[in-house]
Amino acid sequence: MSLFDNLRSRQTVRQYTDRPVDEQLLRRLLEAAARTQTMGNLQLYSVVVTRDAERKARLAPAHFNQPMVEQAPVVLTICADFNRTSTWCRCRKANPGYDNPLSFLNAATDALLYTQTLSLLLEEAGLGVCYLGTTIYQPQQIIDVLCLPELVFPVATLTVGYPQPQTEPQPERLPLDAFVHAEAYEDYKPADIDCLYKEKEEHTVNRHFVELNKTETLAQIFAHIRYTREANEAMSQTLIAALRRQGFWE
Amino acid sequence: MSLFDNLRSRQTVRQYTDRPVDEQLLRRLLEAAARTQTMGNLQLYSVVVTRDAERKARLAPAHFNQPMVEQAPVVLTICADFNRTSTWCRCRKANPGYDNPLSFLNAATDALLYTQTLSLLLEEAGLGVCYLGTTIYQPQQIIDVLCLPELVFPVATLTVGYPQPQTEPQPERLPLDAFVHAEAYEDYKPADIDCLYKEKEEHTVNRHFVELNKTETLAQIFAHIRYTREANEAMSQTLIAALRRQGFWE
Repeated sequence: MSLFDNLRSRQTVRQYTDRPVDEQLLRRLLEAAARTQTMGNLQLYSVVVTRDAERKARLAPAHFNQPMVEQAPVVLTICADFNRTSTWCRCRKANPGYDNPLSFLNAATDALLYTQTLSLLLEEAGLGVCYLGTTIYQPQQIIDVLCLPELVFPVATLTVGYPQPQTEPQPERLPLDAFVHAEAYEDYKPADIDCLYKEKEEHTVNRHFVELNKTETLAQIFAHIRYTREANEAMSQTLIAALRRQGFWE
Repeated sequence: MSLFDNLRSRQTVRQYTDRPVDEQLLRRLLEAAARTQTMGNLQLYSVVVTRDAERKARLAPAHFNQPMVEQAPVVLTICADFNRTSTWCRCRKANPGYDNPLSFLNAATDALLYTQTLSLLLEEAGLGVCYLGTTIYQPQQIIDVLCLPELVFPVATLTVGYPQPQTEPQPERLPLDAFVHAEAYEDYKPADIDCLYKEKEEHTVNRHFVELNKTETLAQIFAHIRYTREANEAMSQTLIAALRRQGFWE
C-alpha cells in the first residue's frame, strides 16, 4: 500500500497488545529509515532502544508518567548527536566545532527527519506509534537514564507496539488553506480565523473537550490549561540549561 | 509501491526537467502530509509555495545561490508557526504564551515532521526533492523575502520538480550499529570509529572527494572546509538574532 493511502487512515496509537516486536523487523526498519536525507551525509542522530521494563519505568517520569512508556514493548529515544561525528573528527586529525546552537539545530533536524521516516515505516509494518512531545520538556532526566554524553540530546520519543483495536475516530485537521501560503505569508485576520477554525471548533470531540474542561473556548484549553505561558517559560529555562550541560550552548 | 521499497532507491534530486508540477497534485500532497502527528493537534507549521521566478531569485542568495532554487519549478519553505495559533487564541479570549525558545522548538518539531512526510509523498508521486539545510543559516533573508511575521520562522526548504535522469549512485550510509544503541548510549572508542567508518572512508566517491579537497582525511573536509567552527559560531549568532526578531527569544 502506498504512503498516501496509509496516511488516510493513520492515527496515533496509545494502547498496545502483548504481541512482542520482533528484533530483526525493528532493525530492518531502523536501517531503512537511514535513507532519509541528512546534513553532509553525516547522520547526526542516534537511537536508543529501550525494551527493559526497569529502564522504561525510569524513563516514565520524564514523560509525565504517560502509560504508553511502560506499556509499549519498545520505546525509541531519538537523539540529536554530534558526539559521534566529533569523535570521528578527533580520531582523524580534524578539529570539530559543533558545540554551539546552530549545530544543535542541525543535528535536531537530522534526528527529526529520521524520526518521521521511521514512524511511517513502523506504521506501514502494522505497528502502532505514539510520538511523545514530552521529550524536550524535562530532557535532563532522559539524558541521565540513557547515559547520553556531551553533544547528544534527546529530541523525540516513539512508543511502539502492535495496536489494540482503535475506538477513537481519526482527529480532524485544519483545511489546507489554513497553513499553505502562495508566494508570501498572508497574515490572518479575525474573519480568516473564524472561517479556518470553524470546523475544528464545531467538531463533536472538541465541543465535548470544552465541556469537560469547563472553559469558554477551545483555544483557552491550550493557552490556559495544556500549554501555558508559565510552563513554557519554565521549560524554556530547563531546556537551555540541559543544552548547556550537553555542550551545545556557551 | 511501499515506502520501504521506495526508500531503497531514493536519493536527493538537484536537477529537474521543464515539466511543470501540477497545482492540484501539489495541493493533494500538502494536504495528505497534514496527517503527520502534531502537538495538541495544533499544526504548528506553515508552508510558503514559491513558483514565481522573481521571488525564487530573491530567495537564492539565502541558499548560497545553489542552482536548485532558481531551476526547480517549485520551492517550498516550511516554517515553524506559532503566529496562527496565537492569533486564534487572541480571537477566542485566550492569552497565548508562545514567545519563548521551548515553543520555537515545539513548532520547529511539528514543521520538520510535516516536512519529512511531505518529502516522502512527493518522491512517491515521482517528483524529485532536494532538502536545503541552508534555510537556518541566513534565516533573516528568507523571513524578509517571504514576509514572515512574528512567531513564524523558516526551518526547512524543499526544491521540487520532475527529476533529470540520475547519474550518481545512491550515497553510502553508516552501518546500523553506528547509530543504534541498546538500553543506554555506549560511547565510541577509537577502535569503534575505525570499524564503523571504514566503509564510508574507503568508498570510491569519498576517496575522490578527499583528493579533490587536498585534505589528509575525509573528516577534515567537514570540520575544516564545509562546516567549520568559525562559520558555525557566526551562524549561531545570526540564528539567535533572527529568533529574537521573530519573537521566540527574550
